[in-house]
Amino acid sequence: MATAAPLPVGAIEAGGTKFVCAVGSGPDDLVRTELPTGDDPQQVLSLATGWLRAQRVGRRRVAAIGVGCFGPLDLNPRSPTYGHITSTPKPGWSMFDVVGAVRRAFADIPVALDTDVNAAAMGEWRWGQGMGLSDLVYLTIGTGIGGGAIVGGRLVHGLVHPEMGHMLLPRLPGDTFKGICPFHGDCWEGLCSGSALEARYGQPASSLPKDHEAWSLEAHYSALALANLVLTLSPQRVIIGGSVRKAGGLGSEGFFELVRDRLKAALGGYVVSPALDSGIDSYIVPPRLGDDAGVCGAIALAQDALAASCPAE
Amino acid sequence: MATAAPLPVGAIEAGGTKFVCAVGSGPDDLVRTELPTGDDPQQVLSLATGWLRAQRVGRRRVAAIGVGCFGPLDLNPRSPTYGHITSTPKPGWSMFDVVGAVRRAFADIPVALDTDVNAAAMGEWRWGQGMGLSDLVYLTIGTGIGGGAIVGGRLVHGLVHPEMGHMLLPRLPGDTFKGICPFHGDCWEGLCSGSALEARYGQPASSLPKDHEAWSLEAHYSALALANLVLTLSPQRVIIGGSVRKAGGLGSEGFFELVRDRLKAALGGYVVSPALDSGIDSYIVPPRLGDDAGVCGAIALAQDALAASCPAE
Repeated sequence: MATAAPLPVGAIEAGGTKFVCAVGSGPDDLVRTELPTGDDPQQVLSLATGWLRAQRVGRRRVAAIGVGCFGPLDLNPRSPTYGHITSTPKPGWSMFDVVGAVRRAFADIPVALDTDVNAAAMGEWRWGQGMGLSDLVYLTIGTGIGGGAIVGGRLVHGLVHPEMGHMLLPRLPGDTFKGICPFHGDCWEGLCSGSALEARYGQPASSLPKDHEAWSLEAHYSALALANLVLTLSPQRVIIGGSVRKAGGLGSEGFFELVRDRLKAALGGYVVSPALDSGIDSYIVPPRLGDDAGVCGAIALAQDALAASCPAE
Repeated sequence: MATAAPLPVGAIEAGGTKFVCAVGSGPDDLVRTELPTGDDPQQVLSLATGWLRAQRVGRRRVAAIGVGCFGPLDLNPRSPTYGHITSTPKPGWSMFDVVGAVRRAFADIPVALDTDVNAAAMGEWRWGQGMGLSDLVYLTIGTGIGGGAIVGGRLVHGLVHPEMGHMLLPRLPGDTFKGICPFHGDCWEGLCSGSALEARYGQPASSLPKDHEAWSLEAHYSALALANLVLTLSPQRVIIGGSVRKAGGLGSEGFFELVRDRLKAALGGYVVSPALDSGIDSYIVPPRLGDDAGVCGAIALAQDALAASCPAE
């Protein structure tokens, strides 16, 4: 008996700078478009849902939509503001109803929402570096810093959802930069997101030379944050995406080597596992899906919402 | 039809100072004994298992054993050292096979092991402050500092298990104490466990007066650690047990008030939830089971192991 091809689903990766929209069933067959995020959420959501409505795979339309969105988000299904962006400082977007905007365009199919970083964790879990694991963390270190997590085979939500980029960390001796986070000043994101590096050094992180102190500073703080993640979430693997790891002259592999060394030093041998010793090169890794982890994860969210809405035959 | 009384199970809470052994079915019917931990693990385990073997509830012996043990532990069932204590500095206990010692005494019934703090999280989840929640953190702030967690309705294990007491935190301005953790120096436990307070001030924490700076320092660092837990594990409630919260003149309620205020300040309004605002008094709470959270959790671990071994009728 032939297995029917999976129904095509739609994905929206709603980032702070751009929207990526895609239709397909996984990383190998995505048809996509990109849109600037801008400061009129209604407009970009109309364009995104309009594009998704127009797509066909063979003669079939999308059967569900998954959205991975920058946050913080209200993900509590019992809350009156479920599906809204909450406390963002991004102009025009605070308290915008993302799920409502998608549901107005697609009233009769499942719509799933999670954070952009939980979506990326999901993408890597299904098709990338997280395959076969039960517990993983996905971090993005770019203009901002964020993290998503799967624990015991499920995305972490709990009270709200993780906001790992705002973790509070010890200062590097002599580092007096006050930080740029409007909420916390010198949290991890405030100290060494791409925006923080630009504020520290007066030029975009990508233009800093290979031997600039920025890179060891970035690796140092990221390793302290990773130590805290190992000590709280106990992931079986940590996947680091985002632009900063690739920026500057160090290159991606140089940055990962530095982070791995600093993480071992920060943990001081206390947590005993081969993954933190001889296996560290496959413990802290870049995403296998590269910059597509988020949009692929949104496809996975849509597939799961579709499966939950259709009892198994 | 009458429901049969639940089968009695046995519990061992193996702490750094004492063992608590108990038989029963929950917090209301425990029969118990206590033993000093000492530095001969084989001896205390023999005494503990001997006591458990001798107990009867009616004519029934215990049908399963749950153990909540200080760590770090190897909890990976596929590891050759599953059930062993790993990197403890405690004399005599490093690489001791806890599960093996219990299984030698009880060859034919299920034996479950988890960390003392995961067990306490489990106890509060089943019978205390965690009832009805899917995501919670249990912390103990005593001689040492530790934490266990339930995420998505399951105890967190992942790579190893959480070791929250060793989280790395920003320094309070002017605090130059170098910390007492043999692995990390000034991690949370190194800065303000009961042992750290005694090293800082030259007297037991319990004898420090109400207006001593120790209490605001303790609340400050604990609130920073709680902020990081909110930002990573996103618990729906945090339960704080252990002796330090009750020590000194502040009293338990005074300590909790200070921690709640400092936590709100540390998060800066970024994570939007009533639990972190008007609901904070029921967000950061003492254990309902008091000092019995751990031993009750070991009972719960035994019950779950028993249920997993007996197909439902």
